[in-house]
Amino acid sequence: MRGKYTYAILSGIILILASLLVGVLFYFKNQPPQERGVEPLVQIEDQEPDSSKWGLNFPNQYDTLQNTLTNNTPTTYGGSEKFSKLENDPRLITLFAGYSFSIEYNEERGHLNSLTDVREIKRVNKTTAGTCYSCKSAVNPRLWGEMGMAEFDKTLFHDLGEKIDQPIGCANCHEANSMKLIVTNPALEEALVKQGKDWHTFTRQEMRTMVCANCHVEYYFAGEGKYLTFPWEDGTDIENISKYYTDLAFADWEHPQSGAAMIKMQHPDYELFSNNSTHYKAGVACADCHMPYTRDGAVKFSTHDVKSPLLNAEAACGACHTDVDYVTERVAIIQAQVRQTMDDTEDAIMAAIQAIEAAAAQTNADTTLLEEARILHREAQLRWDFINAENSMGFHNPEEALRILAASTNLARQAELKAFQAASGK
Amino acid sequence: MRGKYTYAILSGIILILASLLVGVLFYFKNQPPQERGVEPLVQIEDQEPDSSKWGLNFPNQYDTLQNTLTNNTPTTYGGSEKFSKLENDPRLITLFAGYSFSIEYNEERGHLNSLTDVREIKRVNKTTAGTCYSCKSAVNPRLWGEMGMAEFDKTLFHDLGEKIDQPIGCANCHEANSMKLIVTNPALEEALVKQGKDWHTFTRQEMRTMVCANCHVEYYFAGEGKYLTFPWEDGTDIENISKYYTDLAFADWEHPQSGAAMIKMQHPDYELFSNNSTHYKAGVACADCHMPYTRDGAVKFSTHDVKSPLLNAEAACGACHTDVDYVTERVAIIQAQVRQTMDDTEDAIMAAIQAIEAAAAQTNADTTLLEEARILHREAQLRWDFINAENSMGFHNPEEALRILAASTNLARQAELKAFQAASGK
Repeated sequence: MRGKYTYAILSGIILILASLLVGVLFYFKNQPPQERGVEPLVQIEDQEPDSSKWGLNFPNQYDTLQNTLTNNTPTTYGGSEKFSKLENDPRLITLFAGYSFSIEYNEERGHLNSLTDVREIKRVNKTTAGTCYSCKSAVNPRLWGEMGMAEFDKTLFHDLGEKIDQPIGCANCHEANSMKLIVTNPALEEALVKQGKDWHTFTRQEMRTMVCANCHVEYYFAGEGKYLTFPWEDGTDIENISKYYTDLAFADWEHPQSGAAMIKMQHPDYELFSNNSTHYKAGVACADCHMPYTRDGAVKFSTHDVKSPLLNAEAACGACHTDVDYVTERVAIIQAQVRQTMDDTEDAIMAAIQAIEAAAAQTNADTTLLEEARILHREAQLRWDFINAENSMGFHNPEEALRILAASTNLARQAELKAFQAASGK
Repeated sequence: MRGKYTYAILSGIILILASLLVGVLFYFKNQPPQERGVEPLVQIEDQEPDSSKWGLNFPNQYDTLQNTLTNNTPTTYGGSEKFSKLENDPRLITLFAGYSFSIEYNEERGHLNSLTDVREIKRVNKTTAGTCYSCKSAVNPRLWGEMGMAEFDKTLFHDLGEKIDQPIGCANCHEANSMKLIVTNPALEEALVKQGKDWHTFTRQEMRTMVCANCHVEYYFAGEGKYLTFPWEDGTDIENISKYYTDLAFADWEHPQSGAAMIKMQHPDYELFSNNSTHYKAGVACADCHMPYTRDGAVKFSTHDVKSPLLNAEAACGACHTDVDYVTERVAIIQAQVRQTMDDTEDAIMAAIQAIEAAAAQTNADTTLLEEARILHREAQLRWDFINAENSMGFHNPEEALRILAASTNLARQAELKAFQAASGK
């Protein structure tokens, strides 16, 4: 009898322990990897540029990242299929006349194409600064550490390229092994510090937006050294960015037809989104829509097939919205409204350019009025380009996008009038 | 023993019947009144103009309607407190110059003030048409039935007034006794028929928007008889309304400074809201926000204290949105964006008016260009007024409001340029 009891007690203990084990395993399986505290299969070196090494520990994230190479599906206004924006809308050739964006300007493809595409674009020439690699490679965090960003930026593009052999990858956003989300671009850290912000204090959810701001922002090349700088000192809305550039008397190029000192906006996705958009205010991060949680069998992870949420609406929108058809229809309605308004804005800027050119051709033109017209052209176009260059056809912040386009059109038409007044000598 | 059993059986039967009765009462208590099938306390005559009689059957609805007389709380941009829009924004005096809205133009008060306020407004004079009573009284449905709308409209305001002794009330939206929501304004029925729509087929939820469209719409007075007409034949968006008026060569007045044939927009709340707004597309009705379900003790009913949802956000927004602070902050952000954009639009139209006036004063002005400038002024102002005259500072449809204001500014600045070109003889 005693043996029988011992057997029963042992069985019971084993059952309890087994249950506990299953429970613990189940708990950890549902934790994000960086919170698991599980030893990774391989140790990753700090700032390891080769994403395939990280992929040994995180096969799901790595596998989905691979999709960005080939899954280049278009959407109505964007997506990840390469097409010529200049062929698509020939007004851009005039709007960017005299600047490299009038030579070649394509819809960008997925992250893993970053290196190939930057090396093929005709905008790059022998004098191009290394700064142009800033958002193109997972080698950068290590290079910035070794060289410093000032040296990185002033090295010529072609020379720097010898050190760069990886497209965008894990090291652009993650700390090795801990997998913490980190700011790797020194320009972003410096811009935040100037605003009195320390990203180390940000929550994980805030970092799920902040790491995208490593690249998806407006920036410029400061000084002879082409030092990568975000123009956020006065604020990140378009009025403050405009003021910043004006105070600095900065220009990317002079427009050959209007003679205006122009600013090219880069992809200010972060700025537009974070200036009071409904999703941002609701606590939604970039990654919630562009890298939604997904499942592969029983494993839940954030997909690294970063792309338009419209190509993945069930997961992207469906995580919060119950009626995905309803919300994708809303996106279509809003984007059509923005596109229509942007068409009017472009026509207005085109008219301004032609009017200023015509006025300047007259010997008796009023130079003061002409100069005012040029400033209006610059101000109109940088506002329009803030919406043109960001990648959501306004959906990142619909009301703000339309507000800015309305202001741009207003300025462009005033530029046209000023030019006409200048030509009339009045 | 037998007596005891009988007693127990009887007790049981009584208990079951009592339970059933309670259940049935509870069921009917939770049904909307018109679905109860319960005999009302008093029978209401068809189209009874006196709301206090309906109030005997529906004390909660009647009591809350009374609040519209005195609960005239302001909001940031509107609300129900009377203030002079002309004092608030003196540009309106120029924009409406030559038309009665430049004499007196007030923020409207609650429904029960409709009769008092229309009789006090300086816009009314001896020649004013009876049509101006169309949205002011619960007597109208009966009068329209007795006189016909054509006769109603062509009677002089002062003469018609003798028959009108009730402000807006129950009969404007409800069928007596059945309490069904009905279209009472013949102009609305006719406008719907022209669009091939029959309101009798609408759902109750659709009618909870449609009855508001009895009045909260753009309309005009057609022909000598001042026949109340909604300009919806081509569609209810601003482009189609504009086209309708242009095809008809209709004008409300001629602007004395620009000489343009102008259109005054009335409160097109329904049109703006129903053209693809996010709330409309989500199936939300006017009454959901402006007359939210509320409780008085154990009774649930739709409040008839019709007002800005911002003054009742817990009930109005909270019925669908879990975070009322978040959504009211969004309203504030959006309304500020619309107000800012509308300021720019008004400045642009002001500039157009001044430029046309200055050009027209020159004897050698190009009359063709001047005429084009006037058409642009008209088109710009009717778009701006579509947003100015509706009562939500754009919130009924934020993207559409901003899209329209952008288009208006664009047209206004083109008007200014055309005028300048006309003056230059070019």
